[in-house]
Parts: sequence; C-alpha cells; structure tokens
Amino acid sequence: MVISKRMFPLLAGSSAIRKLFEEGKAMAKEVGAENVYDYSLGNPSVPAPELVNESIKDILDNMDPLVVHGYMSNSGFEDVRKDIADDLNRRFGSSFQTDDIIMTAGAAMAINDVLNLFLDFDDEVIAFAPFFGEYRNYVKMAGGELKAVPADTKTFQLNIDALDDVITEKTKLILVNNPNNPTGAIYSGETLDRLQKAVEKAEKRVGHPIFVISDEPYRELVYDDNVLPYLPDHIKNCLIVYSFSKSLSLPGERIGYVAVPDQIDGYDEVKNGLVVTNRIGSVNAPSLMQLAVRRCLNEKPHIEVYDSNRKLLYGKLTELGFECVKPQGAFYLFVKSPIDDYQAFVNEGKKQHILMVDAASFGCPGYVRLAYCVSPDMIRRSFPAFERLAQAMKAYKD
Amino acid sequence: MVISKRMFPLLAGSSAIRKLFEEGKAMAKEVGAENVYDYSLGNPSVPAPELVNESIKDILDNMDPLVVHGYMSNSGFEDVRKDIADDLNRRFGSSFQTDDIIMTAGAAMAINDVLNLFLDFDDEVIAFAPFFGEYRNYVKMAGGELKAVPADTKTFQLNIDALDDVITEKTKLILVNNPNNPTGAIYSGETLDRLQKAVEKAEKRVGHPIFVISDEPYRELVYDDNVLPYLPDHIKNCLIVYSFSKSLSLPGERIGYVAVPDQIDGYDEVKNGLVVTNRIGSVNAPSLMQLAVRRCLNEKPHIEVYDSNRKLLYGKLTELGFECVKPQGAFYLFVKSPIDDYQAFVNEGKKQHILMVDAASFGCPGYVRLAYCVSPDMIRRSFPAFERLAQAMKAYKD
Repeated sequence: MVISKRMFPLLAGSSAIRKLFEEGKAMAKEVGAENVYDYSLGNPSVPAPELVNESIKDILDNMDPLVVHGYMSNSGFEDVRKDIADDLNRRFGSSFQTDDIIMTAGAAMAINDVLNLFLDFDDEVIAFAPFFGEYRNYVKMAGGELKAVPADTKTFQLNIDALDDVITEKTKLILVNNPNNPTGAIYSGETLDRLQKAVEKAEKRVGHPIFVISDEPYRELVYDDNVLPYLPDHIKNCLIVYSFSKSLSLPGERIGYVAVPDQIDGYDEVKNGLVVTNRIGSVNAPSLMQLAVRRCLNEKPHIEVYDSNRKLLYGKLTELGFECVKPQGAFYLFVKSPIDDYQAFVNEGKKQHILMVDAASFGCPGYVRLAYCVSPDMIRRSFPAFERLAQAMKAYKD
Repeated sequence: MVISKRMFPLLAGSSAIRKLFEEGKAMAKEVGAENVYDYSLGNPSVPAPELVNESIKDILDNMDPLVVHGYMSNSGFEDVRKDIADDLNRRFGSSFQTDDIIMTAGAAMAINDVLNLFLDFDDEVIAFAPFFGEYRNYVKMAGGELKAVPADTKTFQLNIDALDDVITEKTKLILVNNPNNPTGAIYSGETLDRLQKAVEKAEKRVGHPIFVISDEPYRELVYDDNVLPYLPDHIKNCLIVYSFSKSLSLPGERIGYVAVPDQIDGYDEVKNGLVVTNRIGSVNAPSLMQLAVRRCLNEKPHIEVYDSNRKLLYGKLTELGFECVKPQGAFYLFVKSPIDDYQAFVNEGKKQHILMVDAASFGCPGYVRLAYCVSPDMIRRSFPAFERLAQAMKAYKD
C-alpha cells in the first residue's frame, strides 16, 4: 500500500452513488439506454438558462481576456461578490458586505474550506441522518470524524432530541442540508430555533462555539407554498454554503460561495480564514463562471419541471404501496424499503433496471433515494418496472 | 479563537505574494498604476490564445448544455483525457491511457489531491529550496509537514547531497517544480538521475516508496535551446502535475491534471485513489474549461514575449550590478539582495514602488523574486527606479 491509511477505507467504499452511475452506464451499453431507469444522480435535467451561455459569449466578446481568465483576489471578483451580497440582502433582509462572500469552486470546495478552517486533527463534525453521504468523506479528508445523529423517521425533521448525546468536546461543526438531500424535507424555522437552543446549551457544556453550516444548493428548488427559513434569523453561529449547480444547472462548472454573517463569533477570523483555506484549496473559483453567474442572479430555476416529475413519481409509487416522504424541496424522493432486507430491495430494483441509491450511505439504512431530475418520459417508461418491483416485493413478504 | 490551531499560523502568515499584490493595488490608488512596478504575481501578461474563446463559443453553440455544464466522471470527460494522453504520448514517447489522466481544478487542486491521497497525519513532504511558498501551506492543510532541503545557491539545481539528511521514516513525497518558480532553473536529466539514486537509497532505509511529484505548469515556457527532461524517464515513482494556467494564460479558470505513469508502485491504487481525492476535493474539474483546453492542446505560448522581457530585465539588472540567476524557463527572475539585510532591500524597492517578493517565503532568504510576466513598457519604465534602488544599496554598503 503506497497511499495513506486514512484514505484507504474511503477508496474501498468510494462513492456508492458514483458506483451506481458507472453501473448504469454499463447496463445501458447492454440493454440500451432507454431501458435503464437511472434515478441515481442529482444531475439537473433542465438545461442551464439561455442567459448563462449568452452571458459567457458576451463576456468573451467584450471583456479583456486577461481579466476574464486571470487571477483575481482569492475570494473572487469584487463586483461579483458585491452583486451576490446585494441580491441576498434584497431577498432575505440580510446585511452582507462584499467581503462576507467568498466565491468557491462549488459547494464541495466551500464545505472543504470551512472544514479545513475549523478542524484540528480528530475533531468531530455532526450531521443529522439522513445526510448526503459525501459529507463523511469531506470530514475524513479534512482530518476529522463525522458523527451521525440518528434520523427521525417520523417527521424527517432534525432529530434535535438526540443531538446532545452526540456532541462532545471535540465537536466543532454541525452540517445541515436544507432542503435536504436525500429526503426533500425543508427544516422549518421552528426546527432551527430548537437547534439553536440545543447548540447554545451544548456550547456551555463543551466551552467553545459550535458552528452550524447550512449547505443550501437546493435553496431555490422549493415546492407548493413551502418557504425556506433564512438560517441566520434562527442560528447565531452559522455559515451558508451555496452552489449554482442546481439552480442554474451548472453542476460540472463548480461555482458557488460561502456567505459569512457578521453576527457570528470570531467574524473577522472566520471571514479572513476562509479566504486562506479557499486559496490553499483551489486558489479561486473559476473566473469566467464567476462573471457569468453574476449576470444570472435573477434567473429562476424551472421548478415546474421538477414539480411535475415529483407529482408523477410520488403519485405512482404511493399508488403502488411504497411509503415515500413527500418532497418539499430539492429533487429527490426518499422511499422506504417494503422489506427488511433493503439491499435485496435495491438489487431487485437493479434487476428491473431501476437504479436507486441505498440510503445506508446517507446514514439511514432501510430507505432508498430516487433522484427525479430526469426526463418525465423516463419516469413514465419506468412505471412497468416499478410495478414488477412492487410485485417482487410482495413475493418477498409472502 | 474559533478556528483550528493548525490553520491559525497560516492565517497570520497568509500569502506573502498575495499580500504584496494587495499592497500594490493600494499603492496604485495613491500614486497611479503607471508609477507602480509590480513584479509580484505570476499572472500571465499574454492573453489566452484566440482559439480558447473561439472554442468556448463553438462549444456553447453546438453542444448539449446538459453535457457542457453537467457532471461527468469525477476524473473528467473521457475524450478530453484521451486527447491529453495522446498528446503527451506523441510529445514524450510515453504510453498514457485515458484513465492515467485525472482532470483537476488547476495544479493547486492536483497537488492537494496527491497530498490528501498519500499523507497520514504528521507525515512529511520534502521540497528543495527555493520552492513556491504555497507548497508549505498545501502540505500543512493536508495534515503534514513540509521539510526543506537548503538551496544550492551556486547552481540552483536540486541540492541532492543534502537530501538524505532530511528524509525520515515519515517522508512520503518529494515536491519538485520544473522549470522552477522562483529561480527559472530547469532541473537537468542528470540532476533527476541523481535524485532517483538518492531516493532509491532512502527508500531502502525507510522501508517504503517515496514519490516524486513534479509540478510542471511552466513546462512549455522554456528559453533558448533548453529542454525540459521528461520526468518518468528519470524517476520511477513519480506523478506529473500540470496546469494550463501559464501555457494558455488561464490562471483564473483553474484547469489542470495529474498524469499517472504505469511504472509506479501501487499504480492502480494511486490512479483510482486520485479520482477519489479529486472527487472529495472539488467533484471534478470545471466542465466547460475541460472541453475548451481539449481543443487547444496544440497551441504554443508566446514564449517570445516572455523571452524579450527576460532579456530586457536580466540585462538591465546585471548591468546595474545585481546578481541574478539567468532564467532557463518560467517567467521569474531570482535576484540576490546586494546587502545582508534583505528585508531592507525589499523595503527600499517598495520606496521606489518596485514590488519584489522576498524569497524567505520560498525557503531562500537573501533573495527576491521578480515576475516578469508584465508589459515590456512597465519593465522599461521601472529602470530609473531600479537605478535609484541600486544607488540606495550602495549607500547601505558604504
């Protein structure tokens, strides 16, 4: 073994989702892409708004290439950050300044920046199950350990009652994903208020601040009359991580930011520190994309496309007797395995060429995640396969 | 203090170069940009070749936006990696396959990927002084410690004789930068052969492989008849890190790769492992830029522009009596402080509005680095300032 002891287990485990994605590619070669029902990956099915490409072309035609493709301050172009701060302030009544926004190479980099800034070796980060499985790897790579709070499978809100047992003197951060991947749940203002109370209590016990990081790439993907609470209204020590991957359908481009509210403990230290960890991590966020998203801050995602998919899939699966969490946001459906042997459920799905992610990797075994950011046509074509899967499940139970 | 103990010192130190860059911006506001001679930053002065922007526009006009801006395999688009492998094979007689190339968000990310894969907590990485100062921070953030081999200030080749004393059982990697930033030296094939012998000997002593990472963003920036040796011809356990920042003038875009030769120990483990650390670090390299650089692999940098700058600045400074390393590659001039108090030299430079980077941050105090990727006009305008600086230095010595 030439690689490190700490990374070796991560290689073996790799990403369950990505593995499934590769399996799907192989399956498609075998039976034809149209006969594979790939619900594995959160890759938006709605193309980027036309304004993105128009903006890029206009930038290339009219701006100095040395600026467009060159280095800027490590936190990003000043005018990009100012416009994002102003946009947030307009929408949420916040008071972000230019320097409170640090542009990053996507939300992954933003989370890494935060972890690298806060964690000493062996420190702990808490996530509420079910959580995006990659969080565990981010924390591990930054030298820490992720500790999971068991899921509240009744409400799929944050299981605050179980939090205090998991917080130790090594706990530095709590990672929250709102709206949640993989459940589609939105954590309510009331839930966040309860989180703040629990954190305050724990901070007194452990003797240091515990920051809540809210990972909000699905912030604009919210259904019905649901409203995503504005985190700093509820949590004192918080940081907001954002990505344009889902709202502007730019997941491959790696463009996002961290927003630092001035109400936090150690405000200057954190703000300046994130610029440093961002610089060491990737120097700066991709320059052309920074300039492009700046011009698209008023674009709205085509939520109606995802909403129609949501209704289609949720309707069919509940009709077939599957127990599903009704998504309030994001584009994932969280489905309970009808049988105790949830791995058999996932494998029976694969036999029907349905790719579902086993939620064990989200810290919530017994469930699967279906990403419905796919074509409505694929959803409809998958219905007979789901019918066969439901039948197969009945046979298991009998 | 809310941030980690390990990052706190890095914040205080921050990047000397970036600090100077910001000082320069302030100075320009005060005395006018045309009166500041900013030699601080390696930001290419030659714009990206037109083919870059043409390619981007063509990609946007003719490819599916879901592909252009979407997720791909974490190692990058297959056809991009294949074309890069083929290009390397054609130029260097190597035998890279598609999967030996992992596209990264620039060389910084590539180095982080390697460090994160190889280092356990407290492991050591060796760099030969003078080295790019940021290496120390990359290593620190990955949980390791950088150990410096003192510079050979006679030849500015790798100080192989001093290497063995620095290698311990914790040593996992040796970081080499060829052509070197900050000296412009090219490490010869002979030097690399000596390195291989020293590493082999040390590997026997410590009982595990020690990999040499060659950071080669300046590979195409080589002057006169100098030839950059092809690393795997000389070093068995090596990885090549590359960035398009300098050759295509795209430093802000963060696009590069790691190339994994199949001759290394643990080939599969390393190749697959890098895909995982790259995924955890930033998911994938920016997608549009991957597609764009693919079309620009045959572009040549305008080396004649940098060469003319090199001759201009080197000529004037040696004429004024400054002792300089004659650059064989890259776009940096390494100048010896005429006085023992090298910080006074840097400060006298600032009084003349000349921004030079104190090479103490490169592990080589007593020298400064001048980045001559600037306009020839700025170089000429700076000559009277250098004359005054030379005078001031004489006064110091008297």
